[in-house]
Amino acid sequence: MTEGFSSDDFFMARAIELAMKGKGHTRPNPAVGAVIAKDGKIIGEGWHKRAGGDHAEVAAIKNALENGAGTLDGAVIYVTLEPCSKPGRVGACTDAIKASGLSEAVYAVSDPNPVNADRAAAILLAAGVKCRKASCSPKIMAEAEDIVADFAKHVKTALPYVIVKIAMTLDGKICDSNGDAKWISSAEARRKTGLLRERVDAIMVGANTVRMDNPSLLSHGAENPDLIRVVVSRTGDLPRDAQIFTDGKNKTLVFDDARKALEELGKMGVTSVLCEGGFSLASYLAGEGLVDKWITVLAPKVIGKKPIGEAVTLKDVVCLQDW
Amino acid sequence: MTEGFSSDDFFMARAIELAMKGKGHTRPNPAVGAVIAKDGKIIGEGWHKRAGGDHAEVAAIKNALENGAGTLDGAVIYVTLEPCSKPGRVGACTDAIKASGLSEAVYAVSDPNPVNADRAAAILLAAGVKCRKASCSPKIMAEAEDIVADFAKHVKTALPYVIVKIAMTLDGKICDSNGDAKWISSAEARRKTGLLRERVDAIMVGANTVRMDNPSLLSHGAENPDLIRVVVSRTGDLPRDAQIFTDGKNKTLVFDDARKALEELGKMGVTSVLCEGGFSLASYLAGEGLVDKWITVLAPKVIGKKPIGEAVTLKDVVCLQDW
Repeated sequence: MTEGFSSDDFFMARAIELAMKGKGHTRPNPAVGAVIAKDGKIIGEGWHKRAGGDHAEVAAIKNALENGAGTLDGAVIYVTLEPCSKPGRVGACTDAIKASGLSEAVYAVSDPNPVNADRAAAILLAAGVKCRKASCSPKIMAEAEDIVADFAKHVKTALPYVIVKIAMTLDGKICDSNGDAKWISSAEARRKTGLLRERVDAIMVGANTVRMDNPSLLSHGAENPDLIRVVVSRTGDLPRDAQIFTDGKNKTLVFDDARKALEELGKMGVTSVLCEGGFSLASYLAGEGLVDKWITVLAPKVIGKKPIGEAVTLKDVVCLQDW
Repeated sequence: MTEGFSSDDFFMARAIELAMKGKGHTRPNPAVGAVIAKDGKIIGEGWHKRAGGDHAEVAAIKNALENGAGTLDGAVIYVTLEPCSKPGRVGACTDAIKASGLSEAVYAVSDPNPVNADRAAAILLAAGVKCRKASCSPKIMAEAEDIVADFAKHVKTALPYVIVKIAMTLDGKICDSNGDAKWISSAEARRKTGLLRERVDAIMVGANTVRMDNPSLLSHGAENPDLIRVVVSRTGDLPRDAQIFTDGKNKTLVFDDARKALEELGKMGVTSVLCEGGFSLASYLAGEGLVDKWITVLAPKVIGKKPIGEAVTLKDVVCLQDW
């Protein structure tokens, strides 16, 4: 391995890109990407598209063969996550790798299930296939870990990984005195929220957010038909004509308790939930130790007691986390 | 001038350091630093310590002579702000420079008063002393501008430069349900707030902050006896035993209106005010267009509806300004 950017880094970075294509569509499975390289060149690529479909390794092997690779002897497969070693809805990837003729398997993250962790290496080595953990930069390794953080939490706790995303003004407001929250985020913030929504299994809000904002809770770019919409309402008193109930798009579930919602979603195989507010739901989840990542979007605006819609935008804003 | 860091950058960076020593003590004058260099070496340094005392240029000239510089012929003075060209409480710096024998004067920022801007160059050039604006990097120039942002605003508007500093939790709270705010900021944040307090002319809070926190409003490190404490209270109903009234330290003024307070402070020669809350005072000032810089300190904590003192601290926090 050379100093700096290694070939492991190069191929794993591509495998990570591929894995991200499946993000938000593979529950209860993890998003995984794989690259097959021979003589330093990529000859096959694949990613896990949805549960029940080909795993990334099998997709990459098929792709390499489609691309005219006569044999995979001498080729190396780079996978973001350790290949599975037990048959599930599809055959074990270790079997597929053995059968393919691949000479080596390199993976970034060990199977988060302690029972399976690093089993693939033993199985493949016994079959004469080299297998090792990747030698990647800390950044690449962190990216690979991050992709399966949801799957890892779900495997270990049966609960989904919870991301809170809250947009607020400099004076801590998430809406104006009329309950209007749409003016807080910039167009760029809304675009990025859309990207987040494409990459999770479910999106959760409190009842007030539905009453006040009547949101679609969908990404406005590439839509994700697999996304589940979740509302937490202790009373169940929700407007029947709300978009989430009437637009005929993604499934919407209502729960009367946030913790129960997460437990039920976990049972359904939901590995990640994005909570977009309001404060009381997000604070409750944090207080119960159920939040894994908190994203605060701070708009350079002040609402104060100005009339509705007259937020003041400040130019010279400095934001310091735990300064 | 060479590529990258020039000698102008080198000497001006030191002059900026010197200017900062006077910050918070020179009202109604600006903080200014000066360096005298000969044959590429610093032979004198000075800064303006307080109104009525030597200006930075005179202090640096005296320092150079004290250091044994027989003559300043061939020496260059670097000043963060254009030398004054009209006598005030002390003589004009252009006269002092002419009399000193200095060969050249270099300044970073032009006099913010349009009537005086770049007059020094004309006066000095007519007297056979070279004078020019510094050729510094944008970073150094911005630092030099920043030092006199308060003075510049005061000269132009007769109002002080207003900095808002608010510390809040991830769920937009500046205190718990008992009004306790002390737990929000980290020790590091409190240390840096102390530094800010040393560098402004006055510090302002709303009445509730006095009632709830009973703060000293002083820096706990190097104390600044010149700092004025200001409370805005519409009713004037403030606890008579509050620290700010009874500790026998810095002057404390009470105003019934924030805008009036700024106008009166401006008349008193106060060039900068740090508003440390609460939200309603800070939001009011922003709404009136009176805020020049807003600093938000975001603590990686959530208070929610937990009992007092039981804030939850989150490890994985991402803060994005106008994401």
